[in-house]
Amino acid sequence: MSLPDALSFGLRGILETRLSLTAADRGHHAQSESFHRSGLPDAVAWPETAEEVAAILSACNDARVPVVAWGTGTSLEGHALPVRGGLSLDLSRMNRVLDIRAGDMQATVQPGVTREALNTELRATGLFFPVDPGANASLGGMAATRASGTTAVRYGTMRDNVLALQVVLADGRIIRTGTRAAKSSAGYDLTGLFVGSEGTLGVITELTLRLQGQPEDVAAAVCAFDSLDHAVECVSATMQSGIPMARIEFVDAAAARAFNLHSGSAMAERPHLMVEFHGSPGAVREDAARFGEIAAEFGAQGFDWAALPEDRARLWRMRHGAYHACLALRPGASGLVTDVCVPMSHLPAAVQAAADDIAAEGLIGPILGHVGDGNFHSLLLVDPGNPDEIAAAKRIATRMAERALAVGGTITGEHGIGIGKRGLMAAEHGEGWHLMGQIKAALDPHDILNPGKLVPDRN
Amino acid sequence: MSLPDALSFGLRGILETRLSLTAADRGHHAQSESFHRSGLPDAVAWPETAEEVAAILSACNDARVPVVAWGTGTSLEGHALPVRGGLSLDLSRMNRVLDIRAGDMQATVQPGVTREALNTELRATGLFFPVDPGANASLGGMAATRASGTTAVRYGTMRDNVLALQVVLADGRIIRTGTRAAKSSAGYDLTGLFVGSEGTLGVITELTLRLQGQPEDVAAAVCAFDSLDHAVECVSATMQSGIPMARIEFVDAAAARAFNLHSGSAMAERPHLMVEFHGSPGAVREDAARFGEIAAEFGAQGFDWAALPEDRARLWRMRHGAYHACLALRPGASGLVTDVCVPMSHLPAAVQAAADDIAAEGLIGPILGHVGDGNFHSLLLVDPGNPDEIAAAKRIATRMAERALAVGGTITGEHGIGIGKRGLMAAEHGEGWHLMGQIKAALDPHDILNPGKLVPDRN
Ligand SMILES: Cc1cc2nc3c(=O)[nH]c(=O)nc-3n(C[C@H](O)[C@H](O)[C@H](O)COP(=O)(O)OP(=O)(O)OC[C@H]3O[C@@H](n4cnc5c(N)ncnc54)[C@H](O)[C@@H]3O)c2cc1C
Ligand SMILES: Cc1cc2nc3c(=O)[nH]c(=O)nc-3n(C[C@H](O)[C@H](O)[C@H](O)COP(=O)(O)OP(=O)(O)OC[C@H]3O[C@@H](n4cnc5c(N)ncnc54)[C@H](O)[C@@H]3O)c2cc1C
Repeated sequence: MSLPDALSFGLRGILETRLSLTAADRGHHAQSESFHRSGLPDAVAWPETAEEVAAILSACNDARVPVVAWGTGTSLEGHALPVRGGLSLDLSRMNRVLDIRAGDMQATVQPGVTREALNTELRATGLFFPVDPGANASLGGMAATRASGTTAVRYGTMRDNVLALQVVLADGRIIRTGTRAAKSSAGYDLTGLFVGSEGTLGVITELTLRLQGQPEDVAAAVCAFDSLDHAVECVSATMQSGIPMARIEFVDAAAARAFNLHSGSAMAERPHLMVEFHGSPGAVREDAARFGEIAAEFGAQGFDWAALPEDRARLWRMRHGAYHACLALRPGASGLVTDVCVPMSHLPAAVQAAADDIAAEGLIGPILGHVGDGNFHSLLLVDPGNPDEIAAAKRIATRMAERALAVGGTITGEHGIGIGKRGLMAAEHGEGWHLMGQIKAALDPHDILNPGKLVPDRN
Repeated sequence: MSLPDALSFGLRGILETRLSLTAADRGHHAQSESFHRSGLPDAVAWPETAEEVAAILSACNDARVPVVAWGTGTSLEGHALPVRGGLSLDLSRMNRVLDIRAGDMQATVQPGVTREALNTELRATGLFFPVDPGANASLGGMAATRASGTTAVRYGTMRDNVLALQVVLADGRIIRTGTRAAKSSAGYDLTGLFVGSEGTLGVITELTLRLQGQPEDVAAAVCAFDSLDHAVECVSATMQSGIPMARIEFVDAAAARAFNLHSGSAMAERPHLMVEFHGSPGAVREDAARFGEIAAEFGAQGFDWAALPEDRARLWRMRHGAYHACLALRPGASGLVTDVCVPMSHLPAAVQAAADDIAAEGLIGPILGHVGDGNFHSLLLVDPGNPDEIAAAKRIATRMAERALAVGGTITGEHGIGIGKRGLMAAEHGEGWHLMGQIKAALDPHDILNPGKLVPDRN
């Protein structure tokens, strides 16, 4: 379907040159880092204000034309790909930091601001925004996927760090959710409802975010273990000990090899933990020492402390580059990324079972994870021209999700549902999935917002 | 309205002797600590299982009879009082701790378990559940009001500490929200939607809670300031410094006097802060020292350290008893409790304005608060037989809420909406309030769940 002429005309009136129907622009907004492919949007729009978004949604709602929000397109399950055509609503031009209130440790931003852009702006304030997915994603997209990353173990996910939103609803109403107070009991948590809703309930046009103070002192280290088991058991023991880890990341032997090849590190080709401590100097010293003792019990070796800020920056740049480093292990390969999260006591068995399964299917699939939360990924490297490999990767991913559910975990710790995980929603939520559908139907009666995603099909 | 005979008969079949129509039981379920009065429920039911709750809701839904959940009835805005008769659903017999998984730091409980009962059960595990409203409320009621208390500054509110729920919907469907994973991006945050929904969207029949490890070391102290201003400015400065306070409570001179009279303390009749630090011994020492330095800048005096566990227990028992201690300042008086929460930088002015307003109206109204979150209360003491005093108290409460909104705060930090705050919902949420109504209508089409509360009236 292409856009009805009257709608095209109306949108052109709102957006002038910021509406495109070219094949190039449409193609760009049908591409993602993921495996998933979809049709093209019929047009791409670049709004600059909430009022423009409202006018666009209202017009599309009247014409029953789908609207799919687009942040930076880094989501991994095909979230931002249009499955029923319509308009791709690219928010990259809404990229202003509107307000930084250092005394309240808050910032208000437009949705197209990226996490790196915000942190650059914050540099002089002594504050930072902690949520750090591996990609330089937009804050609107991060809220929409309930993203997290290496620091969630200490500072939480987007759920914990978004205080308030401005949202445009399907019919063009502009609402505000939440306040700038640290907590509230004033009715339903609408902010929480939109965070993680993947563009299916409304378009986020402004976010008020909680910031963190730069810690007084920081220490980071890498250490190696002689088995996957020992490394992951060490994570369980560390978290149960109550040490307030700022970061605790697992990388397996294959990932270590990828870092060595891609980032010039010289790690042993064995499982590692990468850890960081934040706090007062005394606290950091004590926490690091206690972690060292626990790690020693599990046979950790080769502790490499990143003493200088540059060393730490290099360490975490390497971790954030893991996706591309691992892809380079098999030139020409595509990656299918898995993303389960399990209760801590089940983490060692879950990681081991994933490793065994990948080996049994004969694929290369480095495993890494934000293991302090019980969250881990494997990046399954497949030849995109080989249907057998793709099928094997999908089998592995499905079994990982099923094993996670069997122990009370979730099919996605941070990446979200998009196209790829929708088939597993009933298994995770049962009747609750239909409740999500009821909420969607109440808020978006004509199903124009990212249709065909997240909730069950309407009948 | 009384229950239709067929419904009474049906409920009797489900509940046998656990259904009461006596005036005494009905009267007990129409009383609360608050100012608010309502009619009686037509009957009271004490279900023991989720299946019984489902059968009751299904029958009441078919008969269009209101159902109001009842935890321990300690909510302060008339939340649990029936405004349209119907059934009071008393969850106190669903009071079993179902499962404690120490390795995952989680517990699963029935909704009638109180926070003190849970913490008693946890004693041997080295874990505790941190959320601590001043009353020994039920965990179901605490989730339903999104409660918090003295430790929210460190450990969060019920929003942060409920991982998963079992909920019975209006039509009797039993759903599960959330998983036991620490985080998830699997669709809409249904857990977060039910937390804070005050019994209007469903009845919580099971909660999976996040637990905390008992801190390795703890220190607590009280110190006095020569003005309200200095005490509250000290809070702002402390929070901005990033010291990870476990508790930081403000009490004004009147509250200190109330403690002296009621709890046998010997505090100066001046504003005080009550603080607590949790962590490793070194961290506690450093944090306490840094706080001491900041407090000294604001003229803090008479630091009284609670060294022994018994001393700390006495300190926080006194704080938790503040409501009754303050009530005793004016024998025979009733208390109207206010509950605003503002961004930190606005806290000193907000507290000062409240104090000035109370003085100008000529009421006694001690001020205390969980000030690390920007949340504070005044307990306005009025002669319940004096309409002028009641009107004055209501004026003060409304102006506090309006001033909070004007600086980006909320009308309720932790107590919730109930009957008392409903008139302020439009001012806080604007069009968002109508969105709450849309969600309510989708989930409870016949408006049987705690009708007349939280959302706008249907038309
Ligand atoms: C190399 C790599 C590493 C990654 N590492 C992590 C990681 O560690 N943790 C993690 O959580 N994720 C990670 N991701 C995934 C991805 O970065 C996140 O999902 C991110 O939040 C997506 O943001 P985006 O701006 O790219 O959103 P997009 O991909 O553009 O959109 C994502 C979804 O949000 C919707 N959306 C976007 N903007 C809005 C808006 N303003 N209002 C409403 N809906 C909107 C879209 O419609 C779509 O459904 C990684 C991805 C890559 C490629
Ligand atoms: C002295 C005193 C001090 C207090 N201090 C604080 C404080 O520091 N912080 C704070 O947050 N609050 C405080 N409160 C208020 C009160 O304790 C809280 O609101 C508490 O969460 C209410 O719990 P409850 O079990 O008494 O709920 P109830 O009063 O019985 O019910 C409250 C609401 O929740 C609903 N509900 C109850 N159970 C369920 C269920 N299982 N499923 C669905 N809905 C349900 C009811 O319908 C009602 O709408 C205080 C109250 C008093 C009297």
